[in-house]
Amino acid sequence: MGLAIPIETSARHIHMCQKDFEKIFGEGRTLTYKADLSQPGQYVAEERLSVKGPKGTFENVAILGPFRPETQLEISMTDSRKLGVPGVIRQSGDTKDTPGCTLIGPAGELELDHGVIVAKRHIHMTPVQAIQANVKDNDEVFVIMESFERSLIFADVIVRVNPNFALAMHVDTDEANAFASDSKPTGVILKLFGGRTYNLQKWADELQNGINRL
Amino acid sequence: MGLAIPIETSARHIHMCQKDFEKIFGEGRTLTYKADLSQPGQYVAEERLSVKGPKGTFENVAILGPFRPETQLEISMTDSRKLGVPGVIRQSGDTKDTPGCTLIGPAGELELDHGVIVAKRHIHMTPVQAIQANVKDNDEVFVIMESFERSLIFADVIVRVNPNFALAMHVDTDEANAFASDSKPTGVILKLFGGRTYNLQKWADELQNGINRL
Repeated sequence: MGLAIPIETSARHIHMCQKDFEKIFGEGRTLTYKADLSQPGQYVAEERLSVKGPKGTFENVAILGPFRPETQLEISMTDSRKLGVPGVIRQSGDTKDTPGCTLIGPAGELELDHGVIVAKRHIHMTPVQAIQANVKDNDEVFVIMESFERSLIFADVIVRVNPNFALAMHVDTDEANAFASDSKPTGVILKLFGGRTYNLQKWADELQNGINRL
Repeated sequence: MGLAIPIETSARHIHMCQKDFEKIFGEGRTLTYKADLSQPGQYVAEERLSVKGPKGTFENVAILGPFRPETQLEISMTDSRKLGVPGVIRQSGDTKDTPGCTLIGPAGELELDHGVIVAKRHIHMTPVQAIQANVKDNDEVFVIMESFERSLIFADVIVRVNPNFALAMHVDTDEANAFASDSKPTGVILKLFGGRTYNLQKWADELQNGINRL
């Protein structure tokens, strides 16, 4: 049996740069560690903030530490509709031409002019795991998962390889709700058709026609 | 090219029996036609109601006509969490041992003791289309769909065949948000592995191992 990839759900959260954090939490303030996340070195902070868009507000949004070079809010497609901003699917860090929003903390507000993304689904893994799975950084693959009455195969899944990563596929809350939530869902990688359904549709069609002719 | 199946999103809605409708809208009242749905003979009514669960309420819920023998509320997995009821995935009409909720209309309230389901994804088609796709009523298949940056293959999709159906796959709002919303999404049927990912995972694993050895 190959690599069984744990599938984890990311609820809406924000990564912040120190400068933006101090603007809304107060000068000299910093993140307070609360709990570890599955990726080594990443943690949830005690601090929370509100994010406001043209149509709605989310309160009590989790801040993940440590600080990053740029502030980035990650939401689901459903969240984007509630906030009233376009849902733009991007890899983490690729925030050019993305929508903004208002961040509200105990010491002030900050107008972000960009940085709101719907995270593209992705797998974190180490170089050793990448060799085992025969994939490399930035490959796109299918992930076949198993779920009672509601299984899915995810296409367009980006592989991210880094010695500091732990093996996990990250999906958002919409994607998690589209399958039934098993307690410990896992998936299997299939690296074919560039991880895209475009060619697979044609292949399936020809295969199905072949089966029909038998 | 085979059958391109239009993929339609069902937002939360209710089907009602006449008796339950009269209890909350008033004796002698009936459904008022507002607009056709894609399935022949089915329509959205002018009337709307509220549904209440232990944790939350949805107002302005659409009622679909005509009346059915039994009242059935169809919600998404996300909705089930907001209402505070278990999300039970069922085919339409299979409501035994499902949760209930409170229905609120202009003339009263009604305590449903069961009938709240998360609809299992399904395809409506005619007998002629079933022959064309080489499937029969109650078959389970995969549906491969195409969507920018966020494609999916749905597993566990039930085929429903009836001369009165129009060709369409119905997914709920969570499932629709898990792919990016194209204006006219379509899918292609693949009838293999009983439409289940269980055996596909093993097959993919062996295939991937074979590819890795090349």
